[in-house]
Amino acid sequence: MGSVKDFRPIFFVIGVLLTTVALAMMLPAVADGIAGNPDWRVFLAAGVFTLFIGVTMTLVNRTGEANLTVKQAFILTTFSWVIISAFAALPFVFSNLGLSYADAYFEAMSGLTTTGSTVISGLDNAPPGILLWRAVLQWLGGIGIIVTAIAILPMLRIGGMQLFRAESSDQSERVLPRTAQLAGAIFLVYLVLTIINALAYWIAGMTPFQAICHGMTTISTGGYSTSDRSFSLFDSPAIEGIAIVFMILGSLPFVLYLHAVRGGAKRLWRDTQVRWFMGIVLAAVIALSGWQWLAGGMTIDNAVRYASFNAISVLTGTGYSSANFGGWGSFALPVFTVLMFVGGCTGGTTGGIKVFRFQVLYATARVQIHQLIQPHGVFPMKYNSRPIPETVPGAVMGFFFLFIVSFALLAMALSLMGLDYITSISGAATALANVGPGLGSIIGPSGTFQPLPDAAKWLLSFAMLLGRLELFTVLILLVPQFWRD
Amino acid sequence: MGSVKDFRPIFFVIGVLLTTVALAMMLPAVADGIAGNPDWRVFLAAGVFTLFIGVTMTLVNRTGEANLTVKQAFILTTFSWVIISAFAALPFVFSNLGLSYADAYFEAMSGLTTTGSTVISGLDNAPPGILLWRAVLQWLGGIGIIVTAIAILPMLRIGGMQLFRAESSDQSERVLPRTAQLAGAIFLVYLVLTIINALAYWIAGMTPFQAICHGMTTISTGGYSTSDRSFSLFDSPAIEGIAIVFMILGSLPFVLYLHAVRGGAKRLWRDTQVRWFMGIVLAAVIALSGWQWLAGGMTIDNAVRYASFNAISVLTGTGYSSANFGGWGSFALPVFTVLMFVGGCTGGTTGGIKVFRFQVLYATARVQIHQLIQPHGVFPMKYNSRPIPETVPGAVMGFFFLFIVSFALLAMALSLMGLDYITSISGAATALANVGPGLGSIIGPSGTFQPLPDAAKWLLSFAMLLGRLELFTVLILLVPQFWRD
Repeated sequence: MGSVKDFRPIFFVIGVLLTTVALAMMLPAVADGIAGNPDWRVFLAAGVFTLFIGVTMTLVNRTGEANLTVKQAFILTTFSWVIISAFAALPFVFSNLGLSYADAYFEAMSGLTTTGSTVISGLDNAPPGILLWRAVLQWLGGIGIIVTAIAILPMLRIGGMQLFRAESSDQSERVLPRTAQLAGAIFLVYLVLTIINALAYWIAGMTPFQAICHGMTTISTGGYSTSDRSFSLFDSPAIEGIAIVFMILGSLPFVLYLHAVRGGAKRLWRDTQVRWFMGIVLAAVIALSGWQWLAGGMTIDNAVRYASFNAISVLTGTGYSSANFGGWGSFALPVFTVLMFVGGCTGGTTGGIKVFRFQVLYATARVQIHQLIQPHGVFPMKYNSRPIPETVPGAVMGFFFLFIVSFALLAMALSLMGLDYITSISGAATALANVGPGLGSIIGPSGTFQPLPDAAKWLLSFAMLLGRLELFTVLILLVPQFWRD
Repeated sequence: MGSVKDFRPIFFVIGVLLTTVALAMMLPAVADGIAGNPDWRVFLAAGVFTLFIGVTMTLVNRTGEANLTVKQAFILTTFSWVIISAFAALPFVFSNLGLSYADAYFEAMSGLTTTGSTVISGLDNAPPGILLWRAVLQWLGGIGIIVTAIAILPMLRIGGMQLFRAESSDQSERVLPRTAQLAGAIFLVYLVLTIINALAYWIAGMTPFQAICHGMTTISTGGYSTSDRSFSLFDSPAIEGIAIVFMILGSLPFVLYLHAVRGGAKRLWRDTQVRWFMGIVLAAVIALSGWQWLAGGMTIDNAVRYASFNAISVLTGTGYSSANFGGWGSFALPVFTVLMFVGGCTGGTTGGIKVFRFQVLYATARVQIHQLIQPHGVFPMKYNSRPIPETVPGAVMGFFFLFIVSFALLAMALSLMGLDYITSISGAATALANVGPGLGSIIGPSGTFQPLPDAAKWLLSFAMLLGRLELFTVLILLVPQFWRD
């Protein structure tokens, strides 16, 4: 087992994933076939091609060895997102939309990372196959990141994720065995929530097709919609309320749902990350409702309605909009920028820095202040009433530092390509935090990423990958020492 | 020795400082007297009043005890800046400028923290007393922060400053004794550099008065000028070159000058913080020169000239301008924003996060990546070829986190007062990093802070204090436990 250069187990898994993606391409093929849209051939051809590659990779790289080394797990995680996006982009290129490959790759990466930034306008007249394919990508990306966050990142000790290592999985060389069982249970929860969500949307007034697409992009906090107008198309408090519930459900740690099934819903509330997250939701809703009511000239009902939907959409990294919140005036813009950075809980589908890291950072800053007051005092740090392992604070702070530095470098690079201040800053933030829309007139909730230069689209695709895989997973591959045995 | 509630030794020191400030008020009084400006009476009256309070505080609080406890040192550091600003503001209120007290306090705090943000326009026609007073405040603030950074902050272990504790000063309960000697030597260096700087300005074409004022505000990286047009008034490459040299000299650790006197200039270069800082200077100058040359339509000579002066002015937190760099287009704005955050070396007069912290953060992130690759490897962290004490990385990261959080909260609070996106963001950054001008049309290099609401001025005054005293020194006073014995 295990030279770094042994790519066989990696390509084996990627082959399996590509096969899955190829089969998923049959869904939009069927949808376009029913609608009589000629793009069904594109999906079928792309599917067959991807299936061929996927099956070949699987067969050629079979080793009978089901385990991966830590290094192989790093390579697998990054490569799988990069390679699957490359294949998932094919239908966008060859469909009637006629996107360039840069655009198509951006759209696929944005989908699979559950970001939700789009380069496509005219969604309302787009064929059903394309709309369904975008939704499927986010849905697959959502379950992909949950499984990665539960099974792989804690073992890799990414940015403090070792906090979430199950005690029994301490033998860090073995990834796959126990995981399959857990992943299966979580997939079931994910599927059931998606179905309930879609049914609720349907009952509340969406067409079945809209309900299925939005069901897949809500629970995955992805945010692709079937309309350029996103949720303002429906103008329905009921539909917005349903979306709020499922965006929040998608932002909580999915493992807790398994506990909740056995131990009741109070198991959820006992988790401090969940409580902090709900506190942040409440604070954001109150702040923005108050602002829109007192300064934005909305009635209090409308202020609460629009502020809660859009604040929760941005905080959870979903990226739906029910109003052009980019035009909500001075206070709203920095608040939305900050919400982008925060994100939801780890183990859900959201991006951003994530709530547990702010808990650890807060605990660390608090201990430091107490230690300044009492230099010889001992102040244990706790998370969920258990002591925080000593490697965690440093790892979390390293993550925070790299996140801010990556953000600053990305914003500077985007501005070097000629993008204005608010587009550069919010574009870097929204990609890195996997939110979706940015701020300003170009990439704001009413715009798209289409007008950006190709270089910016490639850079943002990289930023989405970087944010989705929690920085270290990607950056480590750029360190020469990694590739030495 | 030492209940927290024993304010006598604190007020004793503040009394001494107020007495110094009162005597300093005689300088503008004399200047206005010579110029025949009636404001001389204002400075004399403010001086006599401040002298009375200062001497009274000194006499009433004499205890014969020359030492301070750690808690008293915290209180002294914050209170001295707050109280001295309150008195230093008096001449601004009662002079012909007729500033409100909020404006006057803002201007005094901006001076004493060597920030350089101003609410006064029409400097070119202002009486010499006011111009000299602004320069004197920055000059006093500059030496004040050097002494604080050398003598007090390392003992208080603020944000990793324990890295700079002299081995011999480990008895953390004793502040004042050894300090006086070191402070005296550094004051001498500071004075000599100021005189050389002023002479150089004079030879290069400034009037003696301009040379003296700018000499005081260059070495202190303060940035108050005698003209609304700042350095574009002179339009002289020689004067700009002199400013560049002394802004950089003001940004290096002053203790090193004492070593350099004994061991030659190569002692300076051996310090890694100095080398990193010079590297950042070079990178910023090259990036902005290239941008202004290739995209900004400047000749290469002008691009290098204007980019180097303004980049170094912002990086060092001086805040002079020789061009309206706020209008330098998309790439320049994020770069200037990032430069604001960086700052110079600790132990100099600059603000910002400071170079040594980025060195520690870089070392920490680097070790973490290596530890991900080799989980059982041991990677010692070094600073200046000596091991970094184990409490330092956590303290530095805590500082970085608090800095970013303070910045985000300040930007949101400013935007709540109605300021636009770029004014809120750059205003929060420029105050917290003690730079001076912000970006955008209001507070940019061609504007002033005058149009902001009073609430914003008070908040920014607090932000300047917070940044100048490295966050923890101020924030700790807000923790209830601090005040318990």
